[in-house]
Amino acid sequence: MLSNHFQNGIETAKRVWSRIPNSEDLQYIDDAVGLLKKSDGSGVESLDYEVIENYAYREEQAQRGKLYVSYLLVVKWFFALLIGIGTGLAAVFINISVENFAGWKYSLTFNIIQKSYVAGFIVYALINLVLVYSSVYIITQFAPAAAGSGIPEIKGYLNGIDVHGILLFRTLIGKIFGSIGSVGGGLALGKEGPLVHTGACIASLLGQGGSTKYHLSSRWFQVFKSDRDRRDLVTCGCAAGVAAAFRAPVGGVLFALEEVTSWWRSQLMWRVFFTSAVVAVVVRTAMGWCKDERCGHFGSGGFIIWDVSDGQEDYSFVELLPMAIIGVIGGLLGALFNQLTRYITSWRRNYLHKKGIRVKIVEACLISLLTSVISFCLPLLRKCSPCPESDPDCPRPPGMYGNYVNFFCSKEKEYNDLATIFFNTQDDAIRNLFSAKTIHEFSAQSLLTFLVMFYALAVVTFGTAVPAGQFVPGIMIGSTYGRLVGMLVVRHYKKLNIEEGTYALLGAASFLGGSMRMTVSLCVIMVEITNNLKFLPLIMLVLLISKAVGDAFNEGLYEEQAQLRGIPLLAPRPKYVMRNMTAREACGSGMVVSFPRVVKVADVVSILRSNKHNGFPVVDHARSGEPLVSGLVLRSHLLVILQSKVDFQHSPLPSDPRGEARPISHDFGEFAKPVSSKGISIDDILLSSDELEMYMDLAPFLNPSPYIVPEDMSLSKIYNLFRQLGLRHLFVVPRPSRVLGLITRKDLLIEDTETVNTVELQSTRVRMENSDRRLMTRNADAERPLLNGLLVQD
Amino acid sequence: MLSNHFQNGIETAKRVWSRIPNSEDLQYIDDAVGLLKKSDGSGVESLDYEVIENYAYREEQAQRGKLYVSYLLVVKWFFALLIGIGTGLAAVFINISVENFAGWKYSLTFNIIQKSYVAGFIVYALINLVLVYSSVYIITQFAPAAAGSGIPEIKGYLNGIDVHGILLFRTLIGKIFGSIGSVGGGLALGKEGPLVHTGACIASLLGQGGSTKYHLSSRWFQVFKSDRDRRDLVTCGCAAGVAAAFRAPVGGVLFALEEVTSWWRSQLMWRVFFTSAVVAVVVRTAMGWCKDERCGHFGSGGFIIWDVSDGQEDYSFVELLPMAIIGVIGGLLGALFNQLTRYITSWRRNYLHKKGIRVKIVEACLISLLTSVISFCLPLLRKCSPCPESDPDCPRPPGMYGNYVNFFCSKEKEYNDLATIFFNTQDDAIRNLFSAKTIHEFSAQSLLTFLVMFYALAVVTFGTAVPAGQFVPGIMIGSTYGRLVGMLVVRHYKKLNIEEGTYALLGAASFLGGSMRMTVSLCVIMVEITNNLKFLPLIMLVLLISKAVGDAFNEGLYEEQAQLRGIPLLAPRPKYVMRNMTAREACGSGMVVSFPRVVKVADVVSILRSNKHNGFPVVDHARSGEPLVSGLVLRSHLLVILQSKVDFQHSPLPSDPRGEARPISHDFGEFAKPVSSKGISIDDILLSSDELEMYMDLAPFLNPSPYIVPEDMSLSKIYNLFRQLGLRHLFVVPRPSRVLGLITRKDLLIEDTETVNTVELQSTRVRMENSDRRLMTRNADAERPLLNGLLVQD
Repeated sequence: MLSNHFQNGIETAKRVWSRIPNSEDLQYIDDAVGLLKKSDGSGVESLDYEVIENYAYREEQAQRGKLYVSYLLVVKWFFALLIGIGTGLAAVFINISVENFAGWKYSLTFNIIQKSYVAGFIVYALINLVLVYSSVYIITQFAPAAAGSGIPEIKGYLNGIDVHGILLFRTLIGKIFGSIGSVGGGLALGKEGPLVHTGACIASLLGQGGSTKYHLSSRWFQVFKSDRDRRDLVTCGCAAGVAAAFRAPVGGVLFALEEVTSWWRSQLMWRVFFTSAVVAVVVRTAMGWCKDERCGHFGSGGFIIWDVSDGQEDYSFVELLPMAIIGVIGGLLGALFNQLTRYITSWRRNYLHKKGIRVKIVEACLISLLTSVISFCLPLLRKCSPCPESDPDCPRPPGMYGNYVNFFCSKEKEYNDLATIFFNTQDDAIRNLFSAKTIHEFSAQSLLTFLVMFYALAVVTFGTAVPAGQFVPGIMIGSTYGRLVGMLVVRHYKKLNIEEGTYALLGAASFLGGSMRMTVSLCVIMVEITNNLKFLPLIMLVLLISKAVGDAFNEGLYEEQAQLRGIPLLAPRPKYVMRNMTAREACGSGMVVSFPRVVKVADVVSILRSNKHNGFPVVDHARSGEPLVSGLVLRSHLLVILQSKVDFQHSPLPSDPRGEARPISHDFGEFAKPVSSKGISIDDILLSSDELEMYMDLAPFLNPSPYIVPEDMSLSKIYNLFRQLGLRHLFVVPRPSRVLGLITRKDLLIEDTETVNTVELQSTRVRMENSDRRLMTRNADAERPLLNGLLVQD
Repeated sequence: MLSNHFQNGIETAKRVWSRIPNSEDLQYIDDAVGLLKKSDGSGVESLDYEVIENYAYREEQAQRGKLYVSYLLVVKWFFALLIGIGTGLAAVFINISVENFAGWKYSLTFNIIQKSYVAGFIVYALINLVLVYSSVYIITQFAPAAAGSGIPEIKGYLNGIDVHGILLFRTLIGKIFGSIGSVGGGLALGKEGPLVHTGACIASLLGQGGSTKYHLSSRWFQVFKSDRDRRDLVTCGCAAGVAAAFRAPVGGVLFALEEVTSWWRSQLMWRVFFTSAVVAVVVRTAMGWCKDERCGHFGSGGFIIWDVSDGQEDYSFVELLPMAIIGVIGGLLGALFNQLTRYITSWRRNYLHKKGIRVKIVEACLISLLTSVISFCLPLLRKCSPCPESDPDCPRPPGMYGNYVNFFCSKEKEYNDLATIFFNTQDDAIRNLFSAKTIHEFSAQSLLTFLVMFYALAVVTFGTAVPAGQFVPGIMIGSTYGRLVGMLVVRHYKKLNIEEGTYALLGAASFLGGSMRMTVSLCVIMVEITNNLKFLPLIMLVLLISKAVGDAFNEGLYEEQAQLRGIPLLAPRPKYVMRNMTAREACGSGMVVSFPRVVKVADVVSILRSNKHNGFPVVDHARSGEPLVSGLVLRSHLLVILQSKVDFQHSPLPSDPRGEARPISHDFGEFAKPVSSKGISIDDILLSSDELEMYMDLAPFLNPSPYIVPEDMSLSKIYNLFRQLGLRHLFVVPRPSRVLGLITRKDLLIEDTETVNTVELQSTRVRMENSDRRLMTRNADAERPLLNGLLVQD
């Protein structure tokens, strides 16, 4: 059918492409820099943004035989183990540091306020300022990509967009030390989002064998070159981050599944689960080791786990109404939070942060001072309450574990309820808000004050140049209004066994649901951190309501932020307008830049310079003179070939006219691009005028069978194809003139053989069976000559 | 480009096909009857098996505007609510019945054995026999599809294979009453798998608006005609089943996700979650209502939830070794279980069950007698042990809640440890095995005896013609050897605070992991039913090991069973041999049967009679005489057209030569096939000789743009395409001669408009933008005339 000459080219391409296999098959990682610039309005003309692709060794590995495949499998699990250990240790390190800084800060402040509240405040504010300054300094000077929570960026990475710098070694370091500073410095933010990013960085660095820039790389580790494998590792890292942040292994798996990944394979689930389990064991071991105060203040607070297993035993149906109200409040406040942070982030992005690094530092320091003033001075204005008689430990010094904090109280047996939640680490504040058997500990006035002030602080703090998670602030806000509702309920239904702490927990769930719009994973995380399964249906109810209410207003926090940061996430479902568009319309009526099989170097260079396309069709001529599309060549492949120059030839003829395999002179490792880097540019390549006059045979480097669609296929159908398979390029071709065959489910139900050796035999047998079957059909049809006109013979 | 005549046909097809949209797009449901017959060896020649397709109204619905879409959304959630309530009530009903039958049986037997053990045994065996007989009678006479657990069949349904009868109303009834008989009759099987099937049946019946056969259908409910919507409902039903069986809502969601579905959309997760939450609330309400003994014996045992929250507080590292050993044992015994049940099922299928219904009934009755003899007589042979002094309630009557059962003991203060687990309902036996603070309750000898006998019984019982789940028997077996290992550990490390019950729990997890090979969902289910999060890392460890060990031997229980039942599941990944095959080879070298656009009725009839293909290409001629593939027409569409006859015409010319829309005379509801039915056959259609001489214009009924692949694409690539998109048919076409355009990620990032009215305007604008962009590129390129030869102008 195809001419020999043409066929030979295809065969060579297949042979080589099976070693640098089609990155179209794998789910793709783009580089969003172009789009980022575009959304920054920096006037870059590039409508085509850079798509820099990685190369996979999957096929090559498979050809190396079963042993190598098992080796790879072992390495994958070993890496999962390493990711678990690494993320677990990073989390322990961050927690120990934060707890110690915070504990030391509070005990010092408390010692000083015994003498003077003014001096105490100055010391308190100064320590906070220094910590926040260290954090913002690290971020602005060393690792700008480590600011924020990192979850939108990781989500983007797993959707196919490699934002520059997001998974580098310096980002990892910046994230770890930055969050110690920002969380230890008492800002209204958490360390959970950053931990997810930390896990993802660890996974990505492991996946590419360390950081080349810092000479920490090892060839031994450079096993995974394909996007798919690296993405799998990053998914494991995300789950590990959540598992470490909340000591919630199942929650981590579900978070990775529901919130972060765009493609999920059930085979991956088990590996992700394993990583989470390793994290759980590492964290547990570290906590066991720290029990005897070996780690300073760590161990008393530390990992956020607010045990409410001694909470409310039962609930009655009449309580469902206030719970539904909590859900509505959560949806409203969460949606408002998303909207406010959206405005403030876009304002920062467009005005404030354009003015340079110094503005970012000053901004963070000012917010730190503001936070210190509010958290120290507001409790001073509050009148103390007398201790309940049931608690013998009643007034505790501030910054310690436990309720009923003594702060600026005149009498001996009094406590300051606002200081109990405000002048405290967030973990302890949440523990106090969740606590059972402490009815009437907080006054409604204090809770309302705290809610308003903390909400405002959280909104203002969001988007500063420090690592910042939104989980813990969200739980703080939610549990405050939850407890408020709980107080009203207790006051209204006096006789029921109602705990305010239960309502605080539901409030926390509702706010997170209203802001992040996570569902199952959030539910499981809430259950795991509170160690109480009884509340599961209640948490579900509250989440259902708050998510529905929130969805009525805007998108989830991470989607909003991804949009603001110019990360173009491909949604799982096509847009409505796509129904009425065809493939032809989608790709415009312009021309297609294509290459012949053998092309002049100078032409390649000019074409690569003249546009920003990342894939080019290769159109060759069969011996009959008829043109045939022989495949797709990628810009990045061309750049590698141009840079190495070994494949240049003087003859404008194909290098293998008789179909003989030319030895491929490339190390295929060259085709792999490190994650988060920009790759080679055409402007980096210098070619002499002699070299420009030479030719390149593209046949070995092209993808011989990219996916094709007919020109009048609906765009929503194409969208599904593109999104489900994670494609980068798709050829739009004219409507075909013939059908050579139909493939149905039955054709795909081939029994696999046990050994690679019998593959040839096996596939022959299958072909025979198929021929037999078709033969039968033909015989059956042959009895009906009247149909002959209808049968398209091949 | 395309001729007008041709274009008109395509336009008509698009217009109509948008109302009976392409079932190729949706994930597909085949009918496995053909393959079942084939695997039964019944000599049916059909190598092409029946693929009977459903029709979707998605597009049509979308065109009805936003209001209708919101209406559909509300209906979907309402259906989720109904599924939750229905499954919850079904579970409550089954549980109340089983508990009451079992409780009544045991109390009657106990009253009689006070006087005579022989009479007691006879009564006990007779009651069991009657219950099992009722179950097997219902199944064999009324609902044969309700035998077994149903999970492999549901898995098949969600993979695209509609096994006949699996989701009918009679199957639902048979499943509910059959499991009451088989579980109440004391066989070594559980009610959890059947509950999953029950949930799926309820969901499917709701989805198609009730059962037509039993006149229980309502037009109001017939909203969902598409495979996708029905499949979503069935997924909800599965999750509801697990949630109801184990009171494990999160476990239910994960079970549906991990074990049952083949395609998962994250949008679905939240709805599935909601269904599970509804089930949890329904079950909880029912249990609350039953508290005051209003439901007889139900309430004391009832829903299996074995609270071990008062279990072992902590564990040391030295315990990890015995736990790993439990994992290995679980993997070995689980794999052995799968292998044995595989042999015994295939033996039953090939020999025993061919002999007719009577054999099935006798078999089940014999197994019931055997079970009665073993469970009654073995404890008689066992010497009683003296009661521990710590438990004042020590000898309890058998069949009651609690440990230390008095059975055939000579002294007052003695109990029979074998009777405690054997002569009891399985739920209570498991509760006893899991129980903490009961060290040395069971002797190693009793546990070993029980393990061997129960394992044998479970293997023999598996595959009889009664509804049968494998969860509870698996937990029984696992917890027995787990407790055995626990005893050895307690004996070895005397000073540690070790509970045998904890080891029993780990043993249960390990056996289920070794047999079913579920991971995350099993872990969550185990945590939810034991209400103890502390053991999560341990359960994970045990599952990791047991699954790995089991995978070394064979496939999971459900995969093995699906294979045996001839359900051809399409695995998520392509087989190895597919790498070396091309599309052309896969579809054979025979001819393709295709239709012209206007075809004679007689020709259609003969083609449909002559083969069993389910999709036919339609090849039309453009005005230039060049043939063009205009689309795919489905057998089932053709059958509907043939049956209704309204589209027959006398002229052999296209019915709309000027592109005018002919009014479509079909009610598109005709195209929808009820789930689990066989659809129309060509032999059912009678046509007069006049009608046979008429013509049909296929243009309105064809799918104008099926997915296409070039002939030399690798089969593994095609497999991914097929599997990811859930296709039924794929056209293999020659390599294209031109590329009209490339579609990249950027082309798919179109902003959606808010209202449907502006769609036209919007899509024009987008097209304009695209043209502008291409224009720019063209201008940029125009400056480089040397490239002109390389640029394929369109």
